[in-house]
Amino acid sequence: MTDWGARAADLLEDLASLSEPGPGVTRLPFTPEHRAAVELLSNRMTQAGLAVRLDDAGTLVGRLEGPAGRGTLLMGSHQDSVRHGGAFDGIMGVVLPLIALEKLRAEGRAPPCSVEVLAFADEEGVRFPTALVGSRALAGTVEPGVLEMTDGDGVTLRAAMTAFGLAPDRIGALKRDPGDVIGFVETHIEQGPVLERADEALGVVSAICGIERHSIGIVGETGHAGTMPMEGRRDALVAASAIVTEVNRLALDAEGLRGTVGALAIGPNVVNAVPRVARLTAEFRSAEDEVRRAAGDALHGFAEALCERMDLGLACELTYQQPAQPCAAGLSERLVKAVTAAGGQGLVLPSGATHDASAMADLCPVAMLFVRCRDGVSHRPEEFAAPEDMGQAVAVLAELVMSLD
Amino acid sequence: MTDWGARAADLLEDLASLSEPGPGVTRLPFTPEHRAAVELLSNRMTQAGLAVRLDDAGTLVGRLEGPAGRGTLLMGSHQDSVRHGGAFDGIMGVVLPLIALEKLRAEGRAPPCSVEVLAFADEEGVRFPTALVGSRALAGTVEPGVLEMTDGDGVTLRAAMTAFGLAPDRIGALKRDPGDVIGFVETHIEQGPVLERADEALGVVSAICGIERHSIGIVGETGHAGTMPMEGRRDALVAASAIVTEVNRLALDAEGLRGTVGALAIGPNVVNAVPRVARLTAEFRSAEDEVRRAAGDALHGFAEALCERMDLGLACELTYQQPAQPCAAGLSERLVKAVTAAGGQGLVLPSGATHDASAMADLCPVAMLFVRCRDGVSHRPEEFAAPEDMGQAVAVLAELVMSLD
Repeated sequence: MTDWGARAADLLEDLASLSEPGPGVTRLPFTPEHRAAVELLSNRMTQAGLAVRLDDAGTLVGRLEGPAGRGTLLMGSHQDSVRHGGAFDGIMGVVLPLIALEKLRAEGRAPPCSVEVLAFADEEGVRFPTALVGSRALAGTVEPGVLEMTDGDGVTLRAAMTAFGLAPDRIGALKRDPGDVIGFVETHIEQGPVLERADEALGVVSAICGIERHSIGIVGETGHAGTMPMEGRRDALVAASAIVTEVNRLALDAEGLRGTVGALAIGPNVVNAVPRVARLTAEFRSAEDEVRRAAGDALHGFAEALCERMDLGLACELTYQQPAQPCAAGLSERLVKAVTAAGGQGLVLPSGATHDASAMADLCPVAMLFVRCRDGVSHRPEEFAAPEDMGQAVAVLAELVMSLD
Repeated sequence: MTDWGARAADLLEDLASLSEPGPGVTRLPFTPEHRAAVELLSNRMTQAGLAVRLDDAGTLVGRLEGPAGRGTLLMGSHQDSVRHGGAFDGIMGVVLPLIALEKLRAEGRAPPCSVEVLAFADEEGVRFPTALVGSRALAGTVEPGVLEMTDGDGVTLRAAMTAFGLAPDRIGALKRDPGDVIGFVETHIEQGPVLERADEALGVVSAICGIERHSIGIVGETGHAGTMPMEGRRDALVAASAIVTEVNRLALDAEGLRGTVGALAIGPNVVNAVPRVARLTAEFRSAEDEVRRAAGDALHGFAEALCERMDLGLACELTYQQPAQPCAAGLSERLVKAVTAAGGQGLVLPSGATHDASAMADLCPVAMLFVRCRDGVSHRPEEFAAPEDMGQAVAVLAELVMSLD
């Protein structure tokens, strides 16, 4: 009997070798490494009986034709990695549905609908200051200026895609007919510790968290740390520290809210001078937009009262906002059922990170299957998902497909 | 009647022009600007009847010979500035005692002892990674390796001094006989807002604060700000912020203690990653060593308990420690008396900053006279002391000299 998890691990290992030199995996879009991955995956798709093509956004599409008029289930994720990333983030979400179709074929079971396995070119946004071009193309939401964006070498996205053999100006034609698409199912490593802590191989995503980011600038007064009395100091770092503490408290106090000050810099930043300026970021994420917005509002109020009291200048700006994206109830329930059938608890959890599914939600119902990853680590060479867990995911995806009867 | 404060302001203005180009005053030791200041001051000292020489540490010495066997009062400060500093820090402490001797001469009053006006080459330590070489030479406390230290161009202190016409290897011979020295009186801008807030022109220094500096390194765990739950986070910045808050609280709660986190850096320092490492400095200053040490101990205890509770790595190191230097009671009381005679309150305050007097205390009794400076500002082009305040200081220094009967 074939060990489908081991088969997935083998294919992921082969794909991991298609990387720029250096630690871990570095596979950026529209590069020779991307080309090599497309070739390897195309061969495997063809062997699995799929009709293969590369669309004009660089998405590799392997299609298994089902009964006419029964629609198409899309399954996939992205082929690209971050620099010195791991062998699972993204690409595992291409490999597992492909192996699931291999499994059904080996078992002589024909899906009740058409199925496509998709490998999007770029989700991480490492090379160009944009991302999700493949999934947005299918949803018809690619913004016009995107093709003129340049990478670190000054190459435009349009030029990179053209050199890759694509016709980027035909991206508009890639928009799918929502009437034909049953939904999009993305499989991904969790990138967090929740499944590992719960001792579960798989989880079903309830929603992709909304995000808001704040940029906070504080201006006080510097002075000699020895000669400036404590009374009347206008220390920007003391205020920034209170804000860090408050962001953490707000997130701990609200169910499902995550709050992080990830970046902070101060000036003059020397041992014997009172800090004059502090610049920091604050990020909130939640599956519930109201919870997230309440935290952002509370933070602004806190910072304003604090800086008023300490006689500090404050510039507080909401720099980014992305609403939560609930997953489709129908597809998600099918996934939970398949997970419990495979012996899991059917644990449901939010996704704190953004995925191709976020963009695909503009086209069709989306659902996500999370696979446990060791120590919650992602975007690093140590990233790891166990073959047994991937084997369970393959079984779940195969049963999901068969359930669309 | 001569306006001695205006006379001081004029001479300081002339000296301020002896600077590298750029905003404010930049006059580093053993440079053409230093040479020009020595020449200008030498002329003025000679006109005032002083015998002038440059010692082998680069200290300009103007001596007014008094009755034999009555000892010598030393008065002075440093001629150098920081880069883009002001026209008062240091050099005013050379000019005011010189003008005080001019005043006594104009009034036909002969001091009851010998008096020397000193202009030390280097107190700021901007050019070489050392400072106080002039005052340490008089106290006999120059450390042997100092002459081999290099400036940013790779020039050793020895070479710079030699090129300046000095014989640095004879520094050891500069040590003064404590039996001949009555004391050292340094006049300096306050570099803080205490006198200005008290509406006082002058203050007498009780002690030069002791200093201790701590280097604190915190190591936690990074992770995706979206996928890492709040529970179980090991966020180095959250801990660092608690430490900043505690340093500030400790200093606010203890009389006369100053506590500052002046430098802080975190990594990875990006908006969507939980900070893994934080490095910060903490500095405490107090005129009372026990108060300062208690704060340092309390901080270490706080950081250890915090990092234990948050499961963080902690490296907490005392990197620098300098005991408080009480000023001599006798000389200081004479200064207070002279200040009240000149119409002041005789306000007594600690010095948060280190001065040449710190080094001179190894030789003889020291006292310091602080002059109010606008907005407490120093080390910047905006640094300013009013002519009227300087005029009061000149009168105080003249009466101090005459009091040593």
